[in-house]
Amino acid sequence: MVDPAVPADLAALTAQYEAVRQRVKDTKKSGDAAAQTAAIEDLKQAQRTLSAAKDASKAAAKAAAGSAAAPGAAAGSTDAATKAPVKADPAAAAALSTEAETASSGYVLKVPKGTRDYLPKEMAIRERMFDTIRAVFKRHGGVTIDTPVFELRDILMGKYGEDSKLIYDLQDQGGELCSLRYDLTVPFARFLAMNTDLSTIKRYHIGKVYRRDQPSVNKGRMREFFQTDWDIAGIYDPMIPDAECVRVMVEILTDLKIPRWRVKINHRKILDGMFDVCGVPEDKIRAISSAVDKLDKMAWAEVRKEMIDEKGLDPQVADRIGEYVKLSGLTELVDTLAQDPRLKANARAQEGVEDMRLLFRYLEIYGVMDKVVFDLSLARGLDYYTGIIYEAVLLPSSEAAGEDDLTVGVGSIAAGGRYDNLVGMFSNNRSVPCVGVSIGVERVFAILSRMEAAKASAAVDTRVYVCGMGKGDDLCTAQRMKLASELWDAGIAAEFMFKTKPRMQAQFDYVDANHIPIVVNLFPKDVAEGIVTLKCAELGVNAQVPRGEVVAEIQKLLPQLA
Amino acid sequence: MVDPAVPADLAALTAQYEAVRQRVKDTKKSGDAAAQTAAIEDLKQAQRTLSAAKDASKAAAKAAAGSAAAPGAAAGSTDAATKAPVKADPAAAAALSTEAETASSGYVLKVPKGTRDYLPKEMAIRERMFDTIRAVFKRHGGVTIDTPVFELRDILMGKYGEDSKLIYDLQDQGGELCSLRYDLTVPFARFLAMNTDLSTIKRYHIGKVYRRDQPSVNKGRMREFFQTDWDIAGIYDPMIPDAECVRVMVEILTDLKIPRWRVKINHRKILDGMFDVCGVPEDKIRAISSAVDKLDKMAWAEVRKEMIDEKGLDPQVADRIGEYVKLSGLTELVDTLAQDPRLKANARAQEGVEDMRLLFRYLEIYGVMDKVVFDLSLARGLDYYTGIIYEAVLLPSSEAAGEDDLTVGVGSIAAGGRYDNLVGMFSNNRSVPCVGVSIGVERVFAILSRMEAAKASAAVDTRVYVCGMGKGDDLCTAQRMKLASELWDAGIAAEFMFKTKPRMQAQFDYVDANHIPIVVNLFPKDVAEGIVTLKCAELGVNAQVPRGEVVAEIQKLLPQLA
Repeated sequence: MVDPAVPADLAALTAQYEAVRQRVKDTKKSGDAAAQTAAIEDLKQAQRTLSAAKDASKAAAKAAAGSAAAPGAAAGSTDAATKAPVKADPAAAAALSTEAETASSGYVLKVPKGTRDYLPKEMAIRERMFDTIRAVFKRHGGVTIDTPVFELRDILMGKYGEDSKLIYDLQDQGGELCSLRYDLTVPFARFLAMNTDLSTIKRYHIGKVYRRDQPSVNKGRMREFFQTDWDIAGIYDPMIPDAECVRVMVEILTDLKIPRWRVKINHRKILDGMFDVCGVPEDKIRAISSAVDKLDKMAWAEVRKEMIDEKGLDPQVADRIGEYVKLSGLTELVDTLAQDPRLKANARAQEGVEDMRLLFRYLEIYGVMDKVVFDLSLARGLDYYTGIIYEAVLLPSSEAAGEDDLTVGVGSIAAGGRYDNLVGMFSNNRSVPCVGVSIGVERVFAILSRMEAAKASAAVDTRVYVCGMGKGDDLCTAQRMKLASELWDAGIAAEFMFKTKPRMQAQFDYVDANHIPIVVNLFPKDVAEGIVTLKCAELGVNAQVPRGEVVAEIQKLLPQLA
Repeated sequence: MVDPAVPADLAALTAQYEAVRQRVKDTKKSGDAAAQTAAIEDLKQAQRTLSAAKDASKAAAKAAAGSAAAPGAAAGSTDAATKAPVKADPAAAAALSTEAETASSGYVLKVPKGTRDYLPKEMAIRERMFDTIRAVFKRHGGVTIDTPVFELRDILMGKYGEDSKLIYDLQDQGGELCSLRYDLTVPFARFLAMNTDLSTIKRYHIGKVYRRDQPSVNKGRMREFFQTDWDIAGIYDPMIPDAECVRVMVEILTDLKIPRWRVKINHRKILDGMFDVCGVPEDKIRAISSAVDKLDKMAWAEVRKEMIDEKGLDPQVADRIGEYVKLSGLTELVDTLAQDPRLKANARAQEGVEDMRLLFRYLEIYGVMDKVVFDLSLARGLDYYTGIIYEAVLLPSSEAAGEDDLTVGVGSIAAGGRYDNLVGMFSNNRSVPCVGVSIGVERVFAILSRMEAAKASAAVDTRVYVCGMGKGDDLCTAQRMKLASELWDAGIAAEFMFKTKPRMQAQFDYVDANHIPIVVNLFPKDVAEGIVTLKCAELGVNAQVPRGEVVAEIQKLLPQLA
């Protein structure tokens, strides 16, 4: 039945808790806000673990003493069903002993490391975010697909370079070897390779992915997180789908009302051509590219040092790269590169430059030139890109970075590029060129949460609350149910308290906490006369109306609400 | 890089394929439609596996012969990026050799057993289904939460009885032992136990769950599938939340337009009391209850046989049970049971009977009496139920069961009940009574798919398609992009073909296949004069309009569309 679990060592857990508490105090003094937040998170976790262990220990002591008192016995429930376990019923007693046994086995009540629950108010923000993003995808003719959360292990192997070690494997319980998906891109490529009749598709996919990375709650780096991908697959004319991906990214960030961001754009062929003409040996190109990719977090001097000391690059070659990666601009940079004496001679670089010229022509038509910048320092880590690459980054606040600075701890919020060879890895008989963008929804969610923290927002959508008022043994229970039923029939979100004798204050508290705009009060004496009280503070309504007209009256109010 | 994979044995796969093909022929003769569908599914899979293995084998032969021809080289692409790999570029050549190596490693292109991909048209049906269900949950003041797809293994152990063997474990890669969730109910109970400040909640959760069951595509039994749960937690007055759960179930099935179904209701206390008064020994109650649960699939005679032969029940006791389980009705059955000489003396049964009396009073108010039936044969498998239990089942068609009979192969489509002790299993200091319902969305999806199969439905929501017409090297590419951009700015879903010289027929085909209602045709000569052609077959529009007015004209048409 219940797996034997090692009883929690209370002394050890208490010591651990005290250690974390000290860390919180220390970080408070140090003034390092990030470290402090992390310590506080750890303290909460330690507190929960300790308290669960204490509960388990108490229950074990109780069980050992032969007591079979039901956990819920003292809860003062008025629900007959809740009371059942304390009755002298053999079945209930059996259930209880199981319960005590389970409790005494010492659950550590927590979610796995690097994962988390989302509470209703957080989910309300998340769902609004996904709805906004989905609306943009649909506006561009996007369709969605679904793929399993785990794939055959072979499908994922050899696609993520060193990061393959972060892949979660399922235990071998007989049958196929499977792993949790690491991203949505490789499953999409596998999907395209399998569905050979689908040669073109604009698809979006919102789903969870898994990485056994070192989690950091503070940086929003989790082991389970959502990815939201948009990809255009198919053989099309140059830069037309690419430009639409940039436009989709700009629309999403605009519609989400993310403040102060910019889309950096570069091209793999320009990057590779640049490395080539600077004199980077062929076998060092990817390593040097990874070093350049760090320029958003590190100064050039540091990156240069890494190139020379760690990657063994000639200092002169590094300095030549340094001249290029400091360049950024728009169409004028395209002209500069087209005329650059070294790049001019590199066919690969010139192909990239011509792509960029066309891309900017299209981005101009799409009215998004003020949102983009051509940045030669953008490299992007993933190996599979073959054409343009882009990344939306938050711009630092103009004021000194304070607690309200949304950019603290947040890197890129959307990124992607062209990858023409990935589908071919699964499929020998055809190539399906792709270009796409992934929205960093977890980072966007962190930003939206901070933006909404100040606002009073509710998780429920309820429009009407039906209150039982006055005194008595039954405060219009049947009448409240009947009215709620009529409101539901009319498609109106309505609630009432599941008590025959609800406390007035408890009902008002619920209405306030959940910002429910309309209230109908039912007093027994009024109801007997066919009258109810309709209230809507927002619209200044406070009126007695005939019971038969109240649904129609509410339908008149609803469109007037903010 | 790429994990070495055992090269697929073509001969064995071919033999396997032939065997399945024979099975399809055999089942065709036998006339067993279910077996035939299953065989055809298997054949498709065998075909895919074989074809992938053949491709891999060919590629391996090619690679061995030293050929490095790009897989996409013959695709006739007009996209510069696509052509890249065939150029004599060292980097591209390197990428190619990786590709050949990967291909030669012999991918079996498939998803794990018991899982599947969902194509855009299927997803459109699924998303409409989820939207409909979500709207009902919100109408009742529901909020949503999210929990991780995997939980600590200890949390899941000891909750599912024998079915625990179906739980997917994650491999031990260091750290905690985790398992994929088996349902959404146990994680919800764990969530409530952890969030001690949440003593009441109406929550819904739509998420995937995992079971290592024997999959059956035909019966819609998969290893990865969605559950859609609605639960009301909190200490409330008897039967008020329970009645709302039944009402929620009825609203959902009604809004989904599922034809011909009924909600069977029973009560665990009546069931247990009935077994008690019939003389079932205490330790056999759950086993006998499981046997009764099969009455929806088996005749009484068979169930009786199982009770006596397999479970060792006294035949007289079985016959007494037989008298009860054939009873079904509504409030009159409540009266019958209240007066039943044997049950009258059983306190537990009478508690259940009084609950049912109150429930029917409330269901009468909620106007759903024509959708429910009190059925003493309903038992429900899960151990954790403590009060009322219910299950929505499809009613067989009145005509002879034919291919159009939606009930074939589909059992219950929604089910649930009251479980007051589950949260207590995780939490010693409090009890949180719960009642809930789970919508069988995969079965509902199967029904909706069959209902929609006849209808022409599209996966895209696109309202306007912008066509490049006539002849020339560039068919208004910039102008098509500009108009699409203006439509997106106005929040209108619009598409155009990503080609500078699109074929007229290809554009019309896309419009037809995707039921896009409005088309704007751009002819180069008209565009030069500031004129475009606006077409909408549904509204009988076919007019030349000034380019500057076309977005406004479209905005006038949109609300008139069906």
